[in-house]
Parts: sequence; structure tokens; C-alpha cells
Amino acid sequence: MAAAAGVSTAAVSQAFNEKGRLAEPTRRRILDAAAELGWSPSASASALRSARTRTLALVVRRPTDVLGADPHFSELITGIEGELAPRGYGLLLHLVAGVDEESALYERLASEGRVDGAVLTDARADDPRPALLRRIGLPSVLLGAPDPEASVPTVGLGNQGAGVHEAVDHLLGLGHRRIAYVSGPAELQHTRLRRTAFEETLELVGLRPAAVLSTDFSESAAVAATEELIGSAERPTAIVYANDSMAVCGIGTAQRAGLAVPRDLSVVGYDNLPLGRWLHPRLTTVDQQVQRVGAAAARVLLARCGEDVPETPLEGRPHLVVRESTGPATPC
Amino acid sequence: MAAAAGVSTAAVSQAFNEKGRLAEPTRRRILDAAAELGWSPSASASALRSARTRTLALVVRRPTDVLGADPHFSELITGIEGELAPRGYGLLLHLVAGVDEESALYERLASEGRVDGAVLTDARADDPRPALLRRIGLPSVLLGAPDPEASVPTVGLGNQGAGVHEAVDHLLGLGHRRIAYVSGPAELQHTRLRRTAFEETLELVGLRPAAVLSTDFSESAAVAATEELIGSAERPTAIVYANDSMAVCGIGTAQRAGLAVPRDLSVVGYDNLPLGRWLHPRLTTVDQQVQRVGAAAARVLLARCGEDVPETPLEGRPHLVVRESTGPATPC
Repeated sequence: MAAAAGVSTAAVSQAFNEKGRLAEPTRRRILDAAAELGWSPSASASALRSARTRTLALVVRRPTDVLGADPHFSELITGIEGELAPRGYGLLLHLVAGVDEESALYERLASEGRVDGAVLTDARADDPRPALLRRIGLPSVLLGAPDPEASVPTVGLGNQGAGVHEAVDHLLGLGHRRIAYVSGPAELQHTRLRRTAFEETLELVGLRPAAVLSTDFSESAAVAATEELIGSAERPTAIVYANDSMAVCGIGTAQRAGLAVPRDLSVVGYDNLPLGRWLHPRLTTVDQQVQRVGAAAARVLLARCGEDVPETPLEGRPHLVVRESTGPATPC
Repeated sequence: MAAAAGVSTAAVSQAFNEKGRLAEPTRRRILDAAAELGWSPSASASALRSARTRTLALVVRRPTDVLGADPHFSELITGIEGELAPRGYGLLLHLVAGVDEESALYERLASEGRVDGAVLTDARADDPRPALLRRIGLPSVLLGAPDPEASVPTVGLGNQGAGVHEAVDHLLGLGHRRIAYVSGPAELQHTRLRRTAFEETLELVGLRPAAVLSTDFSESAAVAATEELIGSAERPTAIVYANDSMAVCGIGTAQRAGLAVPRDLSVVGYDNLPLGRWLHPRLTTVDQQVQRVGAAAARVLLARCGEDVPETPLEGRPHLVVRESTGPATPC
């Protein structure tokens, strides 16, 4: 834009902000050139600056203690950093309490030219963020099920329900009929997708969930949910958890109550975190390749920020990794 | 400085950069005033800008996969973010491969005015970072044992060896005589401090370590070290690990080899991560209050960046939390 008008980027900024010592004819020339190009400062000011921030934003709207407790975020950050670090990029991490705070933050980051782009996580129903980021001209990528209709690129494994579907099939094959689900917060898109997959898979064989309990993903909520389930009159013989951290808490809680895993209770996690491979019993879980998805999202975003990054489409879908925490159902 | 010379901060910048349309007498006046005040632009340029970034840097020199594997960093980030988030601050996370890259990054962040300050982690022997950050005028705080001699404020619990000392005393009291230590990378200051505490505590009662093995903190290294220890002719009856992740891997590895914890092998971790409370057996570990130290470091740094943050000195020392993974020694 500055080149088109034959002026400096500072002059363009002054023309739009009506500041500085710009002569009126110069200001007119700049505004005319902008109108001709269909250019607006809100859409391009950050882009002008962005070539040099080498910073991408990750804004997380979760309680801070869950960030510490759920290794999912470390895995995601690890995947993103794996692409950023070799290119000298950093990741600006912000924790926010609410939607309004999150929106105001993106506006500030864009107007101050603090970041080149943003990775959006925890996609929600009627998510206002993609439209907001388009409006303020900040490149972004949304983590979640691929959606060609979305106004920003979405990056995630296809068929998000496939992993839970496989997990329930696996448990049905082992003879389980009373299967419970310990879910995450209902407002998260992936929580709803997985819960639906859980219920639909049981429905295909004419079964209903033994129970579906919602949690805030915290360890104490996982322990409470597990105690409720194993203390119930019709105790489930298998529990599927919405993440590995909760599944590990569930195994500990069951063992403490005198149940052997998997003899008395089968447990399935979700995430395939490194730790699950080393526990005893080793955790059966759904591999959703968090690191790989994080890396793919970072690559798409880097490309949108003008970096020369090869386009490697993300293929595959979540799949079950059968280890030792699931076994044949034993009626109790 | 600008006020002392009676000019704008932009003029000061122009005088030192020999750019802009500054009259020579003005330039002279600015340089003279600077000389009189002992002021240099490298020390203050970033400070001038810093009031508006609301960003602190955390540069981590570790392999990216360890960041995902070791929840210590999530805990640290959680502690820091707990202070940053309510004040609208973000944390700029960079992963670097080597010392030179780390130094170049601080120089770039300071010269581009990207951050207001930096939290330095993984203190090393002859650490070049505090002097570098002072030179480039970037406020910083070093995580580690309090050191009044250090050129930047250090934030950490006093008596860093106390936790390991307590752990060894606890094991000695349970009748253990063959105690091994699985350590972190030798070049890290906290690794050396804890290893020394381990060896000195045994020496006090005339014992030597059954073994001391170094690792890169990874899970596979923890498994390999544990297999080596439990497969040795003089198998240790207790193992102290340098962090909780490795201790959890150690328990799984021992159980898989047919050993019961703590009946056949006592295990002690280090960090007191939330997960250890829910495992079966619950993990005996050293609480080094990672979140609390991170929060305290953030507060000290925010105060140095001009924020109105109350000074709450960090008291206490690492201490042992006895749970279920340690028990009486049984000769094998």
C-alpha cells in the first residue's frame, strides 16, 4: 500500500490516524490510493508489522490450574514449538477468564502488532473468534475437525468421533455391556463430538450408557466421578475418560477401592500421552496425535504469515491404542 | 534521560543512532547529558518501550519432547500465568537449541522491544545470562537457590538440598542401606545441588550410593535406568528420582518386572506434581512448590517492570511429602 502511494509506511499510518505533520495533498493521495486498492488500515497495519514479530499467539480460556494438570496442553505446545523453534519463532501464551477478555486481547495484540498470527484452540459452538480475527486482519488457524465452510483454516484429524467409536467397539468385543463415560465441559466442541460418538456407538447395538458424567477436566473431578461410578448399585465394568489424566486418576481411584484394572474394571483414556506407555497397567487410549496436529496447525499458520513452509496435509483420524488397562468383562 | 536533556525519547534515540533530522547542537547536548548521567541507550531503549508490551519471556533450552514429557514446565508456566493473566500480561515462550541461540534471542527481543523482562530457568554453572541481560537492559529474574551475590534477583526456595536430605533420612529410617539416585543432566545447577545432598546425607552415616545414574529427564531414560538398577547383582531397595515423571516411569518398570512398590522397592520422586496424589501407590515426593516459585518469580519480575505488585518474599524450603510409594526395606 505504501509502495503504491509512493510514501513510507509511517506516512500511511499518519494519513489514516490524522496525526503527524503530513501535508494535506499527500494525505489525500494516500487515502485515494487506499480506496483504489480496497485497502484498509485495520486489515493491514498488523500485516505490515508482522514480518518482524516472529511470534504466534495461543490464547487459552481455561482455569490456570487445569493448564498445569492436563498434559494435553504441553503436548500441543510441544508440537507447535517443534515447528516454531527452528525458524526462530516464539509462542505468546495468554490465559484469559472469559470471551470478552479473549476478544479484547486479540484486538490489542493486532493493533499493537505483537503477533503475526494466532492458533485458536477449544473450538466452540458459534465460535465468534474466526470472524473477529478476519475482521482485525490477524491470520489464524482453528484446531478442530476439518471444516471447509469455516472462515479460517481448520486443522485437525478427520472423523473426530472415530477414536471413541473404536474404543466402545473394543469394549463391546470384550463383553462389556455397562460402559460409562466421563466427559469434559459440555460447551467444548470436541467434548460434544466424542460424547455423541460414545452414545451412538452403544445405540447401534441397542445399548444405553451406564452413565455419562461431565467434569471440568480436573483431577479431583475425575476422582469424584470415578468414586460415584464404582459406588453405584449397577457398577459399570468399563469407563471411557475424555482424557488420559482423568483416566490415570480413575485407575488409581479404582485400585484404591480394591478393584483390579482391568480384571474388575476396564479403563480407556484419550490423548495417548507419553506417560500412559509406562504406567502399570499400560493405558489403553485414543491416539489423537496432539503433537502432530499442533505441528500441522503451526505450519499452516506460518505459511499464512508468509513463511516458506511446505504444505503437508494432515491425514489420518484418531485411533485406539490397545494396551493393558482393558480386558474381558467380568460380571460383578 | 530524555527529560534530563529536555528532549523527546525519539530525539534521544536519533542522537545515538545518528539517524533523523536532529540539529548537531541538539545531538551534542543529548550525548553530553547522557555521559553526565552515565546513561547508555542499550540499557534503556528496551525499558523505554517496555511499558507497553505486557509480555514476559521464558526461554527454555531443552529438547522439545522433554517439554511435553515433563509436567514440571506446565506447573512452572501455570504459576507464572497465575500472576500474569489477571494483569493482562502474556508469556512469550521460546525453545532454543544452544547457548549462542539463546543469547542472540535475548538480544533480538530486547532490541525489537518485544518483551518487558525475562524469567531465566535451569540455572547453570557460570551462567552467562544474568550479565547479558543486565548489559542489554532487560529486567530478569533467575529461578534457583536465593543468591544475594547474583547480578539479577534469584527466586527459589532456600536450602535446595533439604528435600533430598529429608528423603534419604526417611529411607534410612525405614532401614534402607542400598539407595540409588536417578539424576538429571549434570550441567544443571539444581541437578548438582540435589546429587550432592544425596551423597552427603549417605556419607553422614558412612554409606555410599548404591548407584548414581544421569539421564536427560526423558521417560525412556528413566525406564532404562530403572531396568539397569533392578537388574543389577546388588539391587537397590530404594530409588530416589530427580523428578516425578521419572519416578512414575520407575514404579511402572518395577511393577512390570514383578516387584511390588513399596514392598520390594521404595520410590521417591521430586516436584510434587498433582498426578502423584492419585496414583496407586500414591507417590512419596519432594514438594518444591513449582507453581509457588513460578508465581513469586513473576511477581518480582512484574515489580521490576514497573507494575504495582506487592513484595511477598518466598519463604520455606523443599520438603518431603511421605505417601505410599516408600516402606520398610526388605532384604532380597
